[in-house]
Amino acid sequence: MRVGVLTGGGDCPGLNAVIRAVVRKGVQQYGYDFIGFRDGWRGPMEGDTVPLDIPAVRGILPRGGTILGSSRTNPLKSEGGIRQIKENLAKHEVDALIAIGGEDTLGVAAQLADEYGIKVVGVPKTIDNDLSATDYTFGFDTAVNIATEAIDRLHTTAESHMRVLVVEVMGRHAGWIALHSGLAGGANVILIPEQRFDVAKVCAWVESRFKVRYAPIVVVAEGAMPRDGDMVLKDESLDAFGHVRLSGVGEWLAKEIERRTGKEARTTVLGHVQRGGTPSAFDRWLASRFGLHAIEAVRDGDWGKMVALRGTDIVRVPISEATAKLKTVDPAEYAEAEVFFG
Amino acid sequence: MRVGVLTGGGDCPGLNAVIRAVVRKGVQQYGYDFIGFRDGWRGPMEGDTVPLDIPAVRGILPRGGTILGSSRTNPLKSEGGIRQIKENLAKHEVDALIAIGGEDTLGVAAQLADEYGIKVVGVPKTIDNDLSATDYTFGFDTAVNIATEAIDRLHTTAESHMRVLVVEVMGRHAGWIALHSGLAGGANVILIPEQRFDVAKVCAWVESRFKVRYAPIVVVAEGAMPRDGDMVLKDESLDAFGHVRLSGVGEWLAKEIERRTGKEARTTVLGHVQRGGTPSAFDRWLASRFGLHAIEAVRDGDWGKMVALRGTDIVRVPISEATAKLKTVDPAEYAEAEVFFG
Amino acid sequence: MRVGVLTGGGDCPGLNAVIRAVVRKGVQQYGYDFIGFRDGWRGPMEGDTVPLDIPAVRGILPRGGTILGSSRTNPLKSEGGIRQIKENLAKHEVDALIAIGGEDTLGVAAQLADEYGIKVVGVPKTIDNDLSATDYTFGFDTAVNIATEAIDRLHTTAESHMRVLVVEVMGRHAGWIALHSGLAGGANVILIPEQRFDVAKVCAWVESRFKVRYAPIVVVAEGAMPRDGDMVLKDESLDAFGHVRLSGVGEWLAKEIERRTGKEARTTVLGHVQRGGTPSAFDRWLASRFGLHAIEAVRDGDWGKMVALRGTDIVRVPISEATAKLKTVDPAEYAEAEVFFG
Amino acid sequence: MRVGVLTGGGDCPGLNAVIRAVVRKGVQQYGYDFIGFRDGWRGPMEGDTVPLDIPAVRGILPRGGTILGSSRTNPLKSEGGIRQIKENLAKHEVDALIAIGGEDTLGVAAQLADEYGIKVVGVPKTIDNDLSATDYTFGFDTAVNIATEAIDRLHTTAESHMRVLVVEVMGRHAGWIALHSGLAGGANVILIPEQRFDVAKVCAWVESRFKVRYAPIVVVAEGAMPRDGDMVLKDESLDAFGHVRLSGVGEWLAKEIERRTGKEARTTVLGHVQRGGTPSAFDRWLASRFGLHAIEAVRDGDWGKMVALRGTDIVRVPISEATAKLKTVDPAEYAEAEVFFG
Repeated sequence: MRVGVLTGGGDCPGLNAVIRAVVRKGVQQYGYDFIGFRDGWRGPMEGDTVPLDIPAVRGILPRGGTILGSSRTNPLKSEGGIRQIKENLAKHEVDALIAIGGEDTLGVAAQLADEYGIKVVGVPKTIDNDLSATDYTFGFDTAVNIATEAIDRLHTTAESHMRVLVVEVMGRHAGWIALHSGLAGGANVILIPEQRFDVAKVCAWVESRFKVRYAPIVVVAEGAMPRDGDMVLKDESLDAFGHVRLSGVGEWLAKEIERRTGKEARTTVLGHVQRGGTPSAFDRWLASRFGLHAIEAVRDGDWGKMVALRGTDIVRVPISEATAKLKTVDPAEYAEAEVFFG
Repeated sequence: MRVGVLTGGGDCPGLNAVIRAVVRKGVQQYGYDFIGFRDGWRGPMEGDTVPLDIPAVRGILPRGGTILGSSRTNPLKSEGGIRQIKENLAKHEVDALIAIGGEDTLGVAAQLADEYGIKVVGVPKTIDNDLSATDYTFGFDTAVNIATEAIDRLHTTAESHMRVLVVEVMGRHAGWIALHSGLAGGANVILIPEQRFDVAKVCAWVESRFKVRYAPIVVVAEGAMPRDGDMVLKDESLDAFGHVRLSGVGEWLAKEIERRTGKEARTTVLGHVQRGGTPSAFDRWLASRFGLHAIEAVRDGDWGKMVALRGTDIVRVPISEATAKLKTVDPAEYAEAEVFFG
Repeated sequence: MRVGVLTGGGDCPGLNAVIRAVVRKGVQQYGYDFIGFRDGWRGPMEGDTVPLDIPAVRGILPRGGTILGSSRTNPLKSEGGIRQIKENLAKHEVDALIAIGGEDTLGVAAQLADEYGIKVVGVPKTIDNDLSATDYTFGFDTAVNIATEAIDRLHTTAESHMRVLVVEVMGRHAGWIALHSGLAGGANVILIPEQRFDVAKVCAWVESRFKVRYAPIVVVAEGAMPRDGDMVLKDESLDAFGHVRLSGVGEWLAKEIERRTGKEARTTVLGHVQRGGTPSAFDRWLASRFGLHAIEAVRDGDWGKMVALRGTDIVRVPISEATAKLKTVDPAEYAEAEVFFG
Repeated sequence: MRVGVLTGGGDCPGLNAVIRAVVRKGVQQYGYDFIGFRDGWRGPMEGDTVPLDIPAVRGILPRGGTILGSSRTNPLKSEGGIRQIKENLAKHEVDALIAIGGEDTLGVAAQLADEYGIKVVGVPKTIDNDLSATDYTFGFDTAVNIATEAIDRLHTTAESHMRVLVVEVMGRHAGWIALHSGLAGGANVILIPEQRFDVAKVCAWVESRFKVRYAPIVVVAEGAMPRDGDMVLKDESLDAFGHVRLSGVGEWLAKEIERRTGKEARTTVLGHVQRGGTPSAFDRWLASRFGLHAIEAVRDGDWGKMVALRGTDIVRVPISEATAKLKTVDPAEYAEAEVFFG
């Protein structure tokens, strides 16, 4: 049995841990061969491969990024993309494919499995934690830790100067990173994409915080939007990867707060620091277990399935089910956090 | 309504986060008064209290330890202990008690609630993660991160000198810290209390690791024991808190490995570093949510219950049920990890 | 003897360590009294004080920021400022003043000492490390560590996506943070304010890096400027504290690199994260020693002097000498680093 | 010109940064060839080499340990050792040698240069910081940061339980790590090998600390000894590398404190965690600059010299001078720290 492995979409701490677990277990327990495809779906489309064996995965567990490279190439949007993949899988004698990626990558995997009969197993990945069917995705815990540490640091500068500090964190469609890092970092306001915010209310929280001689930290997800619709981003165009560029909501909000409250406000945009570097212990553990269970699904011939975390168990769910709906922040959980605002 | 709060047992990152959440929500949303009892059950027994209000909980979220102090005093083992508690609760006009602690502290809480009609709500705490009824306890993730970071550091010294490094981590009865940090740190052998280990097999893994020019890391829980029963600890007596002292299994194992393989071996005993200092983001989030739900249980008059994590939900379970049985490592999950040994 | 203490200018990790050392030694060894002035020179101008004794400095060593608050108030620019200071020092029976601050704060201190006979001792502070007469200032090492850790994290995301990552670090007039964190982080280009840069050369380095299948990291100080003068900052106005706002050189440079090389480029602006939070061990040590030597200078009546680091010794130099000239990066040291470019 | 490189003695964060700098500058600016010798002096004695070029040093800057391996082999103590080295240098056409190491490794280098005319340049290395002629050695700052972070964590557990925590850090002959981490971590007692300590005085400090309701942290260098000579180490034998084994002074002292004060005391022995893992930013900067200046010394034919840090400058000194005398803690600097004791 020869198994192909690819990683697609934005990079994420823990990808290498998945690859290592898949290969270690596949080779040692099942005697499989492996082949790596470079840069997500571009690899099998163009037949761009890289050797993948035990020595290739040594020492990669603590390393961020992916040794296979990544891209957002989508074979479904490319004339003849599926045919190319089928040809290249045949040419390299690949019996099964493990696709590690987010909504887009897994969406392709689901269609390849369901409509074209390709033997695919999926592993979910997104630092945004917005995939349904799994309690958590690896990368998220690392991102939250990095954002929390940054918020910890900003508290002291806020208080020494009695300034407002606005921290813009990742999350275009889901506010998980903002909610968790805001709660963990002791933020005084947390703003998420799921609920449009009221600038006047934000300013009221800011001012109530100053009244107790503490300086406020406002955590805002990059995709959060003001309720009143008067926000004009400096530069609204999305980049090639669909990310909002700098000069987004964080900077806008700091200026609004300055204008309305007369208090000095500063913005920090954490950006790509949140998705790089060594994974947290939790993410290494989760990614390793996802890898071990993915190769087990291959052995069981359980095609079109994706591994997922439920409580402390790793289970399998149909990929198509998992990618059907974005997992956004539950309004009740967000409401819970409001007791810490202001 | 006046609510008493106490923290018992070994300290644990996240205790302060629970206290803060309880007080913030209790005061702001329900208008409750609070009173802190010092040093676990010693506080209500001796009437040793400390004021607990919003200013008292400012800034404590990121701080390890507990502002209330802790001890292992057990009123059930003390003549008249229960009577003293009842009297002191009455004297301080305390209507309900929130007890934050591990097996022992919660065991007392369960009996007080079930047999003596005291209005108690519990919050589970143990860095060992060995409490049933909850997926995780706060403090565990922090401990695993600290141990993993130490293992990361030890890899380089092991490899530069081609030495064996034995890392002894916490876990007298359950191997959760060893298993998770060992997996996350890329250990080559993981030994847990749940399964007696075979020194000969450990040495075989050590030697197979050297064959690929990498140096082995052995992670051993303080409570792990060799299969053959020939281990003699230098100093077997437990300390007053029931912890095995230094010079335990880690040091013993390193000497055995040296003797049997002829390879140099060194031991690191992480000790109390694992339970101190600022909590990880996950532990701050979990501890805060536990606190919010505990005060909700008080409002609902849901006595004798404990908050618990199930997946991503906080639920309530009878304290007595939760403390009945130690949650040890599932043999299947341990077996999964063996693919990384050697 | 009663000694006043104030902290002025931008906050900086280590300020609290200085305050603690001054008070501990002053009280315990010399029997002095202390009084804190709030918010830099604003404190003595307006007579805004805070008690300062041993209990007040407990536990502040590892905390960033300053318990005394800070501001950029300059009494020399305020009608009657000097008179107010003299009156308030007399009113509070302050015999000597310890001023902890950067170029501006110390410039005021020097004039007060030299021209108005006020008994002042200075302690240098700037995360930018641009004060003459001292090898290092505390806060700098912390900032460099934070920036280096961010660069470490960005390497993996750069390489997984074969992108350019531009990291903008602090340093308006001096490139010390950029040079040290760039060297330590393995940056492929380092740009400093002391030398205008050539965008074409930057792009050449970027492209040569891609040729070896590694992705480039460009570290740029916020005050660095292109040689050709064609840079237009989106928003050139400085803020009230003299800092260039976001949307500065980093973002501009990323766009230029994209335009000229066709490679994707992203910017991370580390911002205030660099100056907040707990100080590094070196900064705590340096700040503590500065404090101990400052109070010794007070005891010796060595007015108008500032403590400074020379090698591993703490010495005293005239404040006026120390603030006369900005310490910028030595061209030879910068040239040394070029071997790592590209 | 072909240059050999070796690393000897205990491993140390920053070794790889030196190797990388030497090779980058040697190849790119001077056109030299390089060859790596494995495991310190064992490499040139046995002719055990490893290729060393630009690709070999990619990505090693942030990695602890040494890609060349290390050992404590001493050719001067081995019959015919010098002859073997000369033969192997000739056989591999090595024109000059860069030896990176501590007292022992450099002592050999000095003799090879001075008595046998071998063209050697030295780079000093020791985490203990006990080499004369240089302000600091790389590795020391990393060790101090790790120890300080551990002390930070132990404060909270000490205070929650009102316990004494004894932290044993590295330093057999010199107390630099203890002094710097103790100062930075806010220890209440610091004990160094340079001055025998008085257990009664240690207990007095411990008790005075409890009086202000704070729990004491005692930092003790592994080589510190009590004044009264009544210390009996459990296991006095040194290991093959000359390190005192576990069960040393820290554990002994904790028991003495318990016995004399009746307070609970715990010991943490940080051990090899202090010398492994990624170097701090300062150590990466210092090690890189040492490497750049070492290869410059080779180009200048400045044999028998060692690079050294003086203030912020890298200078060259005769190796023999640098290794003649151990740099121990200055009594005045130690006395300075006493104000923080108790």
